[in-house]
Amino acid sequence: MPTNRRILLNEIPQGNLSEEHFAHDEVEIESPIDGQVLVKTLILSQDAANRAWMQGATYRSALSSGQVMSSGGIGQVVESRDDRFKKGQLVAGDLGWQEYAVLPGKQIAAVVDHPGPISHGLSLLGVAGLTAYHGLINVPGIHAGETLLVSAAGGSVGSLVGQIGRIKGARVIGVAGGAEKCQWVIDELGFDACLDYKDTSAPLRDQLKESAPAGIDVYFDNTGGDILQAALFAMKMKGRVSCCGAVSMYDGKPKPGPFGVPGLLVTKRLRMEGFIVSDYRHFDQDAIHDLSMWARQGELKVVEDIIDGLENAPRGLIGLLAGENRGKRMIRVAEPD
Amino acid sequence: MPTNRRILLNEIPQGNLSEEHFAHDEVEIESPIDGQVLVKTLILSQDAANRAWMQGATYRSALSSGQVMSSGGIGQVVESRDDRFKKGQLVAGDLGWQEYAVLPGKQIAAVVDHPGPISHGLSLLGVAGLTAYHGLINVPGIHAGETLLVSAAGGSVGSLVGQIGRIKGARVIGVAGGAEKCQWVIDELGFDACLDYKDTSAPLRDQLKESAPAGIDVYFDNTGGDILQAALFAMKMKGRVSCCGAVSMYDGKPKPGPFGVPGLLVTKRLRMEGFIVSDYRHFDQDAIHDLSMWARQGELKVVEDIIDGLENAPRGLIGLLAGENRGKRMIRVAEPD
Repeated sequence: MPTNRRILLNEIPQGNLSEEHFAHDEVEIESPIDGQVLVKTLILSQDAANRAWMQGATYRSALSSGQVMSSGGIGQVVESRDDRFKKGQLVAGDLGWQEYAVLPGKQIAAVVDHPGPISHGLSLLGVAGLTAYHGLINVPGIHAGETLLVSAAGGSVGSLVGQIGRIKGARVIGVAGGAEKCQWVIDELGFDACLDYKDTSAPLRDQLKESAPAGIDVYFDNTGGDILQAALFAMKMKGRVSCCGAVSMYDGKPKPGPFGVPGLLVTKRLRMEGFIVSDYRHFDQDAIHDLSMWARQGELKVVEDIIDGLENAPRGLIGLLAGENRGKRMIRVAEPD
Repeated sequence: MPTNRRILLNEIPQGNLSEEHFAHDEVEIESPIDGQVLVKTLILSQDAANRAWMQGATYRSALSSGQVMSSGGIGQVVESRDDRFKKGQLVAGDLGWQEYAVLPGKQIAAVVDHPGPISHGLSLLGVAGLTAYHGLINVPGIHAGETLLVSAAGGSVGSLVGQIGRIKGARVIGVAGGAEKCQWVIDELGFDACLDYKDTSAPLRDQLKESAPAGIDVYFDNTGGDILQAALFAMKMKGRVSCCGAVSMYDGKPKPGPFGVPGLLVTKRLRMEGFIVSDYRHFDQDAIHDLSMWARQGELKVVEDIIDGLENAPRGLIGLLAGENRGKRMIRVAEPD
């Protein structure tokens, strides 16, 4: 009889996340009761937000120690006691870091049929793709000829935001860590430029002045912190900032916000707006239509960074927070039956 | 022959503004050349922004030491060499802290006819009134039943914002310094509540929880700093923040922004937007129409805090930055002929 290998959040980190904050165990597979579905995990999403969930209630309740580490993922129905799902079907939900999850049917959703690999359901057509699309198109909007700045440009969301901006006719500048990654963002993703925030010879603020002397129209912020700070100084009058996340702030103690809030917002009449992907669920069909089309046409590259093995989930997330991923990081737990 | 008494900005303050940063002199009255107008100053506006102008370029160029201190005001034309203006007419412009100003005709504007005292051209119908109106109605908007929070509630803009919110059917909570001032904001201006940010027995964040347990829909920020910080924590999901100014930040060294930027913006999907009154010039007629009507109907109280004598301008501004004014502070320099 197969068992369920699980990874628990053993301790809420006070500083940087490390492998010691997790515990591995192996338990019997639960049986679903009426209304529940037993799902075998195929692939798990890794997101900077996973770390933010450990810091307290956000757009979801906080994680607590001792629970299976939360994580969105795609799995296959093994046994269903909810009429809406049947055995063998692919579903998405908060499966957590475990091989099998028992969830109420209302907490999972059927995966939309698409011609790509299963992983596309977490990258291009999943939270990453929808976040990039809605957070650019439906929050600040982007127009041809505008200058778009994107932080975490090599990451799951940033890599798509920049490409969508380019498709829409904007000049796209990325921010990433390390010269080699920046070069990859330009060569592989087609950004017009990519600035290295780790470059000690040139502060980001100076690099921005050189790269966008007339200023930035739209800044898509994945990082917060010093990069947001530099971006605010580089914004054009009436510039728009889409606040998607603050990866620089998640792994450690709370830090104050950037200088110039609210001073620069007034002086330059800036708008900063936060969003969550589910706020724009009513436009998901637009996003799926456009993203699929662009990928099919070869306009949009879907970059996936898949690590094999559930046991590597902690290391994968820790590495993601350090910015080591290229594109959408996922953990492959099993192949579908 | 009359002379021109002037007050110069003698030194750009590095810390708190004091009387020593100004110098008083007396010079001959200049004669206007072609295209210029000689204006006798009647009344000067005092604004927290005057201090911000000393910190560097904002929405206008920075002030430099040795120049007459800048200040909006209303004056009367003494001699005009611009066909658009004639002797005796009331005009508004950057007259500065001086008894007489010679300005290009294109830098002044005729004062709109209104039935109230001249000072209304700086308060109700001037920058204060237009800022309150546009910054509430045209930036975040306000709806009946919403909860509106206003900082610097006893000040020139805040006192009007809260009253406009109340007229629009919102529940209005002010923030001001000192129990007595807070009581005045409630009794005199009709706010539903007013929280004392100086109250050491109850942090503002706790007062907000008690006063607005369901949270704030719209926060009109005149202060930045700790009050903005507390407000961000008290915002409702999808709340809107109108960034009007940051008086807490002007008088001293630059300070970092609030915690929770951008984290709280994402979690709560907040929108923060800065504005300058002139961005909404195309709606000025709406503002003047509504503000005049509300004042005439007795719905809106215009609170003016007028100090007599040009020599008191430095003291007036220093006191304003410390929050001692009630309503719109102005300096009366002369009576009209």
